[in-house]
Amino acid sequence: MDEPDKPARIALDCMGSDRGPQELVAAAAHLSLRREDIVITVVGDGQVIGPLLDASTYDPRRLSIRHSAQWVHPEERSREELERKEDASILVCCQMVAEGQADAVVTAGSTGAAILAAERTLGRVPGVRRTALAAVTPTELRHGPKQDPFALLLDVGSTVTVSAEDLVTFAVMGSAYARIISDNPRPRVALLSNGAESHKGPAEVVEAHALLQNMEGIEFIGNVEGLDILRGTADVVVMDGFVGNVVLKMIEGFGEVVSDLASDAHGRKFLWRLGLNMLSSGMKEIQSLLDWESYGGAPLLGFTQPVIKAHGRSGSRAVANACKVAAKVARSDMAATVERAVCQFPRQGQGTR
Amino acid sequence: MDEPDKPARIALDCMGSDRGPQELVAAAAHLSLRREDIVITVVGDGQVIGPLLDASTYDPRRLSIRHSAQWVHPEERSREELERKEDASILVCCQMVAEGQADAVVTAGSTGAAILAAERTLGRVPGVRRTALAAVTPTELRHGPKQDPFALLLDVGSTVTVSAEDLVTFAVMGSAYARIISDNPRPRVALLSNGAESHKGPAEVVEAHALLQNMEGIEFIGNVEGLDILRGTADVVVMDGFVGNVVLKMIEGFGEVVSDLASDAHGRKFLWRLGLNMLSSGMKEIQSLLDWESYGGAPLLGFTQPVIKAHGRSGSRAVANACKVAAKVARSDMAATVERAVCQFPRQGQGTR
Repeated sequence: MDEPDKPARIALDCMGSDRGPQELVAAAAHLSLRREDIVITVVGDGQVIGPLLDASTYDPRRLSIRHSAQWVHPEERSREELERKEDASILVCCQMVAEGQADAVVTAGSTGAAILAAERTLGRVPGVRRTALAAVTPTELRHGPKQDPFALLLDVGSTVTVSAEDLVTFAVMGSAYARIISDNPRPRVALLSNGAESHKGPAEVVEAHALLQNMEGIEFIGNVEGLDILRGTADVVVMDGFVGNVVLKMIEGFGEVVSDLASDAHGRKFLWRLGLNMLSSGMKEIQSLLDWESYGGAPLLGFTQPVIKAHGRSGSRAVANACKVAAKVARSDMAATVERAVCQFPRQGQGTR
Repeated sequence: MDEPDKPARIALDCMGSDRGPQELVAAAAHLSLRREDIVITVVGDGQVIGPLLDASTYDPRRLSIRHSAQWVHPEERSREELERKEDASILVCCQMVAEGQADAVVTAGSTGAAILAAERTLGRVPGVRRTALAAVTPTELRHGPKQDPFALLLDVGSTVTVSAEDLVTFAVMGSAYARIISDNPRPRVALLSNGAESHKGPAEVVEAHALLQNMEGIEFIGNVEGLDILRGTADVVVMDGFVGNVVLKMIEGFGEVVSDLASDAHGRKFLWRLGLNMLSSGMKEIQSLLDWESYGGAPLLGFTQPVIKAHGRSGSRAVANACKVAAKVARSDMAATVERAVCQFPRQGQGTR
């Protein structure tokens, strides 16, 4: 299984991350020497990434460069920028996949730009009306046969208002993705609501609950509450993008508060120093639960080919993890699985496809 | 200001809390000896609370008992229970206020029952279409002249779908309440959204943002994100009750995870014991941030008189705090302030009142 026939070809957007292109080029160089099943094209400003690549040790059979003159700055307005910049690196990556020159995109640049570039170039899986951004989030409980210390939340992207069918589609896509990355044949899928009972929540959540209960191929465990997210009661937790954004930012906020309290204790209280190593260990344990970097990237789900958004602050290890995940998904039957499941929808089955 | 002319009369529901009536009776007895400005009627099963009161030291000028034969068990279905139990203690408390025998209700029983009982008996402030349950939540930053380590979140109750006007009403009520309990003349009020920009979020949030920007008497600081809730960027954070429930349960979940990690470290790792006192101190600091009990109760806002829901696990100190808060609000001009503000609404001003 680790030696598939055909290597997965990844278009790696090297521009627009917080820590600069060197982390992405380093990840690509590293993988070229160690993974025969992955071929990477680093995409970005040749004048920047060319010298970085020249200074690296890498296997040229599995790593090449593609120049693009432009890129989207994370602080710019993605939509306007992308319209102006036809040669933006993220757009070039997506076009490579759209044209069959690559199988998957990985980027640590702007999330908005990645979503827009993918929307513009890549096809959606038949039956999927809205794509979703999923986040891999740390949990206290472990998940699946690999005992992963994380769960998948979606949508954390741009679906501010959703229909019941959108939520069910997210559940299907999240389940398929979790099955692949966690080798978990039956990931437990839940809807986020304000109570466990099937009648709890806004109309679209109540309706999605009813649809999911009658759906084959999904291990639907019902509604979970906010309490269950960090605890890790479900492998996949489904919500609209507005709630998803609030949830994600709150988890980030917890990490900050813990970290501030730890450093505050250090600075102020002399007597604490005796026990500070111990305190730090405890804090690190909590922070590792809250550390985005350990878990690679956030998949953009619903397109026929994988697009993985690594965290903007990703170092080379996180980028390499994101590339491995992208390769795994590219070699899977995820698109077909999602298409089959989505075709079960009573309404969408008679729909406009 | 601490010696007002007329004492505030509180109807204290002594039934249905997790730790039993003794905590509520003890709080009432304690206050009767120390606060001349508060008069309490303890309401509940006389066979239970009578002996508790007899065994206490209290000032009978400021503490009396009212028997009610029934009460709503927290695990029962509040609506059905309340319909069957005309003599339920929470209903008796609300009726006392409705009939002018008391000025405020305090309960540590079922939140659902408190909301339903108040809805059934008490009048809403003119112009308020939907009442809201607010939660006092711990924050890293301090608030107002009293440097309170908490902020107010609302709605965390039952408004699963809201209009823009509902959100603005919540902002007005939250601002008025924060002004009273924190002695803060201009509490900073924010809308929870998925971005700081005024166009971010669902339609009702975008519209509420525009309404609040043009509103007098409210210190509206714009949108905040999930990150800002624990950090404490705003004194009052406004959201619909579905999102509010998720946010509240996540904060609770975070406390649980921190606590589990601390006790896990204790049990498993012998070498950690050396530094365990220090670790515990750090953990306690975090947990105190997350400790509901320190901060009294959650107000049910929008009724003409205050109803304060203390946490089900409240001990006598927390109940006493909730009674003090209720007395403060009862003596304030909160209802008039809210009415004046709500009448500013362009649409509601021409509405159906």
